[in-house]
Amino acid sequence: MFSERIERLTSSLVRDILEASQQPGMISFAGGLPAPDELPTPDWSGIPASAAQYGPSEGEPELREAVAANARGLGIACDTSQVLVVSGSQQGIDLVAKLFIDPGTPMITEAPTYLAALQAFEFFGARCHGIPLEPGGIDPARLPGTARSTGARLAYLIPTFQNPSGTCYSAETRTAVARAADELGLTIFEDDPYRELVYAPVDRTPICARLERTSWIYQGSFSKSFMPGIRVGYVIASPDLMPHLVRLKQATDLHTNRFGQWLAYRQLVDLNLGVRLEHLRTAYVAKRDAMDAALTEHFGELAEWTAPPGGLFFWLRLHGGIDTRPLLPEMLERGVAFMPGEVFFPATAPATGYVRLNFSHATPEQMDRGLAVLGTAVSGALPAAHP
Amino acid sequence: MFSERIERLTSSLVRDILEASQQPGMISFAGGLPAPDELPTPDWSGIPASAAQYGPSEGEPELREAVAANARGLGIACDTSQVLVVSGSQQGIDLVAKLFIDPGTPMITEAPTYLAALQAFEFFGARCHGIPLEPGGIDPARLPGTARSTGARLAYLIPTFQNPSGTCYSAETRTAVARAADELGLTIFEDDPYRELVYAPVDRTPICARLERTSWIYQGSFSKSFMPGIRVGYVIASPDLMPHLVRLKQATDLHTNRFGQWLAYRQLVDLNLGVRLEHLRTAYVAKRDAMDAALTEHFGELAEWTAPPGGLFFWLRLHGGIDTRPLLPEMLERGVAFMPGEVFFPATAPATGYVRLNFSHATPEQMDRGLAVLGTAVSGALPAAHP
Repeated sequence: MFSERIERLTSSLVRDILEASQQPGMISFAGGLPAPDELPTPDWSGIPASAAQYGPSEGEPELREAVAANARGLGIACDTSQVLVVSGSQQGIDLVAKLFIDPGTPMITEAPTYLAALQAFEFFGARCHGIPLEPGGIDPARLPGTARSTGARLAYLIPTFQNPSGTCYSAETRTAVARAADELGLTIFEDDPYRELVYAPVDRTPICARLERTSWIYQGSFSKSFMPGIRVGYVIASPDLMPHLVRLKQATDLHTNRFGQWLAYRQLVDLNLGVRLEHLRTAYVAKRDAMDAALTEHFGELAEWTAPPGGLFFWLRLHGGIDTRPLLPEMLERGVAFMPGEVFFPATAPATGYVRLNFSHATPEQMDRGLAVLGTAVSGALPAAHP
Repeated sequence: MFSERIERLTSSLVRDILEASQQPGMISFAGGLPAPDELPTPDWSGIPASAAQYGPSEGEPELREAVAANARGLGIACDTSQVLVVSGSQQGIDLVAKLFIDPGTPMITEAPTYLAALQAFEFFGARCHGIPLEPGGIDPARLPGTARSTGARLAYLIPTFQNPSGTCYSAETRTAVARAADELGLTIFEDDPYRELVYAPVDRTPICARLERTSWIYQGSFSKSFMPGIRVGYVIASPDLMPHLVRLKQATDLHTNRFGQWLAYRQLVDLNLGVRLEHLRTAYVAKRDAMDAALTEHFGELAEWTAPPGGLFFWLRLHGGIDTRPLLPEMLERGVAFMPGEVFFPATAPATGYVRLNFSHATPEQMDRGLAVLGTAVSGALPAAHP
């Protein structure tokens, strides 16, 4: 009765975790939610009355222009006509999947990679071939071989403060990935939601700013550094892809809500934006460092990790490759939500023994309490003789 | 390089028309836009600060509850758990297509039917089998034969002030369609965006309120009677379909923008809603009647039509089945946008000699001027010896 792709709608594990994590009293390390205290108050003044009417599929012209100007500042060669406003980054992924993916289509991702992207690509039938993440990014030398052996023409990458691993690609890797993609004619889909949440001096120049020939899609978000409730993000694409993406957008939901677009526009051109982002970074660095301290206390003997230079997550590699998924029901029952790391790996490159922990949402006191509970459970599950 | 479905992204005719219709000075009969004067001013007071945060995929609990209560008032047996808030009705269509349609999947539509639905279904590969619309709706006796000969398990219907034809199914037809669907196990997808724009005493009880056994999806909109810019609509579905639809929604854009949901919620529970809708109906009846008069003057010898009992469109059957699409470029050049009726028919049931005219957007003076221009062009294109 249902379409064939419904069989690929993956398990509700993640929904269950996120739902459970919203229960009152739950200590949540699960989602990627901004800290409630850091959410700005919307300012609705001065939005034109016409925003109540239907609008263009491409998005509000003012917002598109500001986004294009911003992207040029990052080195991405683009004009306003290459900007498509989307109903949050998740929609950008849905549109790109619609554009490229048939059942069986091979593509390249990082391993691990963003779970909801993996699910969306696999839902449309993609075979995701994961290239392992190393401290400075994926090894660019693996791109030609993987592309040729799998037939992949598309790569989905999160080079800056990667989700879930926190990895930030080095400048050399960014350049080398861009060069390989140009040589292979590999389309790059670069997802960049965390770039403003930067806590250390690192190169963040987009890979898309380094491409010279191949097709590309660069995606940005207002959910992490502004407010997710408006559901506004954007896609910037090479001119060959734009007409398709715009028509896909129109067929998907006509256009993005206009009031949210105006809020996003005004934050982009706000003269105080720099000050606000600086405040946000300071708050998140304090949270990151509190989590790092609590981890040292409760996971010092159990796992290794690096304090991330940006983004919202710690990525723990446990001493001993246990599957952390079976720990989840008991943890939720005891009031602690976390993301088992196993779910972030594509089916072609499975791995166990990882945990993703968000640090932006819980208070330091909750971190200490929650990690104590989680640490005890992990410790009990690890093989007795772990190093 | 692209997915196979991209070949089915239909021509940009409609985009071109709608874009052209937004040119300054254009007299537009093309879109289904609410009259600018009738758009309410958003009231942002009292929305909880938490609306800036991520929200549940299903939608705001308050809005879902109000929608369910409203639907029960229409006779639809449902509770809050069966309501899914979507990013406008177009997204409801995208989700239903994802749920049911593979390349080649047969389904039933009216002929003619809503163009953007036809495009979305066909984009996913549906073969849409059109059942001709008659004055009281489709002939229910045709459902069993069409379902059996085509293998269709899903029917998309707009029983109340149908787009493009303005048809309102009679009470008998609604009951007979429901009975046939129950007997056939045919899933009904009922799209009902125009129900509040009612200008005559007609039965509007949803077909979904008359179903007893088969699966169903009922879809409502805030775009026609409130404001389209917020991009908020809703889907209510039988319990067997809900888990799939919620997961599809999550994979598509996580959730609908929350500030728009709050505006929609507050209009639903506004004590002045009845007065506002009455005012809206009065304004649109005046526009409808102005258009009827202008049509009598300029199309009296060229076409037949009925003043619609609700909705936003006149549907003209020309005396002589000419294809009206070739008239469009000259009309746009002369400042008049209209929708050629041919585009509303599924490929399995093509027809020529129809025009759809929106009456909510143009002023009476523009109607007179625009229809004079269009009438002259149609008259010139019709065979000399038309009756």
